Amino acid sequence: MSSTDLATRLAQTTLELCRIESPIGYEGPIADHVEGWALKHFRREEVFRVGHTLLLGSLEDPRPTVALIGHLDTVPMHPGDVGRAPRIEGERVHGLGASDMKGGVAVMMALAEDLQRDALPVNVAFLLYEREEGAYAESGLIPLYAKRPDLSRVKFGIAMEPTDGVVQVGCVGSMQVTVRFTGRSAHSARPWQGENAIHKAGPLLTELLGRERVEVNVAGFPFYEVMSATLAKGGRARNVVPEAFELNLNYRFAPGKSVAQAKEDVLALVAGRAEVEFTDASPSGPVAAGNPLFKQLMSLTGLPAASKQAWTDVARFGEWGVDAVNFGPGETAQAHQLHESAPIPPLAVAYEKLAAFLKGAA
Amino acid sequence: MSSTDLATRLAQTTLELCRIESPIGYEGPIADHVEGWALKHFRREEVFRVGHTLLLGSLEDPRPTVALIGHLDTVPMHPGDVGRAPRIEGERVHGLGASDMKGGVAVMMALAEDLQRDALPVNVAFLLYEREEGAYAESGLIPLYAKRPDLSRVKFGIAMEPTDGVVQVGCVGSMQVTVRFTGRSAHSARPWQGENAIHKAGPLLTELLGRERVEVNVAGFPFYEVMSATLAKGGRARNVVPEAFELNLNYRFAPGKSVAQAKEDVLALVAGRAEVEFTDASPSGPVAAGNPLFKQLMSLTGLPAASKQAWTDVARFGEWGVDAVNFGPGETAQAHQLHESAPIPPLAVAYEKLAAFLKGAA
Repeated sequence: MSSTDLATRLAQTTLELCRIESPIGYEGPIADHVEGWALKHFRREEVFRVGHTLLLGSLEDPRPTVALIGHLDTVPMHPGDVGRAPRIEGERVHGLGASDMKGGVAVMMALAEDLQRDALPVNVAFLLYEREEGAYAESGLIPLYAKRPDLSRVKFGIAMEPTDGVVQVGCVGSMQVTVRFTGRSAHSARPWQGENAIHKAGPLLTELLGRERVEVNVAGFPFYEVMSATLAKGGRARNVVPEAFELNLNYRFAPGKSVAQAKEDVLALVAGRAEVEFTDASPSGPVAAGNPLFKQLMSLTGLPAASKQAWTDVARFGEWGVDAVNFGPGETAQAHQLHESAPIPPLAVAYEKLAAFLKGAA
Repeated sequence: MSSTDLATRLAQTTLELCRIESPIGYEGPIADHVEGWALKHFRREEVFRVGHTLLLGSLEDPRPTVALIGHLDTVPMHPGDVGRAPRIEGERVHGLGASDMKGGVAVMMALAEDLQRDALPVNVAFLLYEREEGAYAESGLIPLYAKRPDLSRVKFGIAMEPTDGVVQVGCVGSMQVTVRFTGRSAHSARPWQGENAIHKAGPLLTELLGRERVEVNVAGFPFYEVMSATLAKGGRARNVVPEAFELNLNYRFAPGKSVAQAKEDVLALVAGRAEVEFTDASPSGPVAAGNPLFKQLMSLTGLPAASKQAWTDVARFGEWGVDAVNFGPGETAQAHQLHESAPIPPLAVAYEKLAAFLKGAA
């Protein structure tokens, strides 16, 4: 098959997947579709489903297992996309989820159809899951892992999120913190009778203003630790000295730092000047640079690698003890956007790079 | 009449006025009641009404005119006061508006009934108005002054707001300002691609935190200039570097400082670091210390005087060119409170002090 034919085929599959609407929470029809397809290409016992999440292939194969990973859901449809049917126009597939990440799923499906999996030097499994676009605690990966803890046998995972065709390693952790300043209310004509909670935040905000991003180099990959006040709210009337002021602080921390260590960083910054409540924490994801399959991926494909300065499920695989990276044909700039689309030529490139890796790995 | 009889009579009138509900915006019944009473004690041409505001007496009398001033409205009823009938218990009148300021109105009415006004050394006028407890621009004094600009002939005004029996001179001005910090949004994993509007407020809030109240002495009376951030709001999502952060700044400035000068103070503080929008301004009120009638009030009554560290309509009279003070029998701590009440003995004291002043002034 020529590269053009391959790209056309992958674009058609991507389009077909986009036509099956699958906003988070409504993955039933697309999971049914993929399961029906899987039963034609896998043995019955290789098709395992929990909810609307599918694990295809075996984890008991003696060869090292590589998992290709994709999620089936999209963000909810933008009102501005209602009534716009998915379609191919020129070199792009247009449709919700085209880049994030039905194009990646199409590549996974084509590889599953084409590879002689029994003859490869590695065992390949395919993981297609629901509820990626929501809260950390509601992902379809959680019920899957509860039933299939043998997933930790996977030696190397490739999550095919949109990465503009770059291999992205590791991922920063993300923590949300409520920082609550407390004062004492008073009439604003006599503020010395109270204590202004909004004013009390001044020194901390000044420190955040002056704080530079902290570069942390992990196995040659730079990650940036950053803290941002993202929400602020305080006061109850124009004429009242406010007794309460709250900030939401978002902390992104580098691979190698635990959630517990990240909490210590926040407490050291606040230094007792306010009450601290940790409301959400997603761990950082390990950098898989030492994994032999990662090294082969890089050497066999010549793909560029970069650090992942955002949170992805690579961190969750890390918690299972599975090294993983992100690599997908979609465009990051298209993810979650109105009128989402995906470029077609990278679909074939991703297919060819992954096929070369899976055939050449040892 | 003994002092006890007088106090009992004033308490009864206060109670009667409390029984006529008059939350701001609903002053019709109480104005009708007071107008009916006035027609028995004033000549027909001395009873002037605009809306639910009454001006009783003449402003053309050759003697210097002293105005006794009271408002007829109360704040809206607290839910916790519903069903509690006004009543006298021990030494207090209980009822919404008892201290602020139906007790003061009762003293005004008793003086109008008792004084031989034609025989006094001064001419006395009585001003009873609606809509004091609301916005500066909605006061009943505005339509009154539009029809009766001769009010500026008043030589001295005594607004009988609750002052715990102390003469309060002048009043601070009050200005509300929106201070708007602007940044540029970005993903909070890459904040260096944006500009955090909340962080930018840090240095200004730190300056406000360290700012001491500024004492301004006017004719021997200390006033305090203070600036407070009273409301704060910014950000739109936990994962987004905020592009906007707004503070409401309340500035209280001393008598003698104009609104224009006060605006300059705010602009100097913000120093171009944020956008400034002046949303509301009430002028400061002049200190009437040099007014001969004020001097006589003090010498004839022996009352203590103090500065008014809050805004009152004394500032508005000042704009008309009328010197005025606050002096009333109510308790400041009771104003606008749940289960409001007023102590009875000070009603008689206020009556006697004012009678002594009006009879003795020259």
